[in-house]
Amino acid sequence: MGHKRSKTRTRAGTDLRGLLRVPGGEPVDLSGYDTRAAAAGPVDKAAGRAATAAIGAHLTGLQERLWAASTAGDRRRVLLVLQGMDTSGKGGTVKHVAGYLNPSGCRVRAFRAPTAEERRHSFLWRVEKALPHPGELGVFDRSHYEDVLVARVRELAPPAEIDRRYDQINRFEQSLTGGGVTVIKCFLHLSYDEQRRRLLRRLDRPDKHWKFDPSDIDDRALWPAYQEAYEIALERCSTPEAPWYLIPADRKWYRNWAVSRLLLEHLGDLDPRYPKADFDVAESRRRLLADRPR
Amino acid sequence: MGHKRSKTRTRAGTDLRGLLRVPGGEPVDLSGYDTRAAAAGPVDKAAGRAATAAIGAHLTGLQERLWAASTAGDRRRVLLVLQGMDTSGKGGTVKHVAGYLNPSGCRVRAFRAPTAEERRHSFLWRVEKALPHPGELGVFDRSHYEDVLVARVRELAPPAEIDRRYDQINRFEQSLTGGGVTVIKCFLHLSYDEQRRRLLRRLDRPDKHWKFDPSDIDDRALWPAYQEAYEIALERCSTPEAPWYLIPADRKWYRNWAVSRLLLEHLGDLDPRYPKADFDVAESRRRLLADRPR
Repeated sequence: MGHKRSKTRTRAGTDLRGLLRVPGGEPVDLSGYDTRAAAAGPVDKAAGRAATAAIGAHLTGLQERLWAASTAGDRRRVLLVLQGMDTSGKGGTVKHVAGYLNPSGCRVRAFRAPTAEERRHSFLWRVEKALPHPGELGVFDRSHYEDVLVARVRELAPPAEIDRRYDQINRFEQSLTGGGVTVIKCFLHLSYDEQRRRLLRRLDRPDKHWKFDPSDIDDRALWPAYQEAYEIALERCSTPEAPWYLIPADRKWYRNWAVSRLLLEHLGDLDPRYPKADFDVAESRRRLLADRPR
Repeated sequence: MGHKRSKTRTRAGTDLRGLLRVPGGEPVDLSGYDTRAAAAGPVDKAAGRAATAAIGAHLTGLQERLWAASTAGDRRRVLLVLQGMDTSGKGGTVKHVAGYLNPSGCRVRAFRAPTAEERRHSFLWRVEKALPHPGELGVFDRSHYEDVLVARVRELAPPAEIDRRYDQINRFEQSLTGGGVTVIKCFLHLSYDEQRRRLLRRLDRPDKHWKFDPSDIDDRALWPAYQEAYEIALERCSTPEAPWYLIPADRKWYRNWAVSRLLLEHLGDLDPRYPKADFDVAESRRRLLADRPR
């Protein structure tokens, strides 16, 4: 799969998926991944923004084809899952990457702490309700992975239950891909220091105070526990069907480029087609031409 | 309301709302409205696109403030309702106007013929489920008005029931505005001839065939009945709380400009504010600065 040829890859030379994919089934050491790396990408902010805008234009066209195909019965769709520590840029990625797309084909959902009703159901219940429909691009800002991340760090469920969830997640995602959903999971990998800089920047700007919660500082004491929880999730849930991609996220322009590039590669491989007319085009044209203007 | 001063209006000189609002409670003659008019707007395509892009940038900022305010309890939100004949550009308006916005604060819903489940409920049921949440911008591509438009033309319900729906709609929209929803209803006013040109253009382009349905040509025989149904809806449901705006829609660049301008004027009057910090900013800064980089 990683080495299949596609128009997209041939055109741009590199398969970013192969470079950023986390190998599943083996221990992950996040400290070994550079949060400022810029694998195969633009080298500075200006180039990054230009490259992302160019990709955005391609994405818009592919999204329309995906939607058009769905009107003729194509069940395929795409789900982009964004995970990462506070300030890693999940919301910014939605704004800058999904912002290129037609909002009518996007289904964006941000998951917060589960409501009382959501807690009465399986942890996958609320996720299933938010899935993209055929032809759509779904974006999850946080996801079912919170149930093995914050749930693990803060011991919100018994260890044995959390342990079972990894397999439940894998089976769930397998059922999605089997049903025509391309699942693209991106871990926005941020450094401890860059988080501090971003939090300080939020404090400096009154128009960013609403994004700040002093408990974000308390959470930094749990940083090692969160990193470990991510390492376990990446190890156990990066599967051939639904791999995790590790996105160096200290530089926003690289993060946006990489996520949009991953979307482009996946959509390029899907290669959705405008459906052929299922009516007599010439006959319709004759009828319209015979319909005199008023 | 139409003459209240606002920053938005002062800046740009004109209140488009006053110019495009349909006076309710009196008969409407759609043939008296020019579908190629360009009231108070840019004069050609290039100027229109530039002006719309400039408005888009403002909208993005206002949308973020609306969302930010909702995190501090502000319940306000906006609902844009788009109605118009086939090819009038409802989908195009979503793409080009809502396309400027952050998709995570947008709730776009296209209404098609009701499903079996939807038909078992009141005609407002499915609409209520699709309403924007506080801080969001909702967009309806078609809406509850279909239940007094196609339902009237194709006699999908008894006349007495359709007659009752206008008041039900008015009460419903009044409850929305009372609950903090700014309702902006746009009728995209297209000419019979321009519809013919657009349908022919769809036939000319294989990548547009998926949007074409030969029954669209049959529907043209019902054009006068649809115009009359719109006239009645505009007369009976353009209320002070939730007025209808009549958008000349033969020229796409004017349509996009006018709808985005209406959004800007309404959001400008709402004037949502970033919430003030409810925590001790200096104390948080001290704590972060004391947190040594690793």
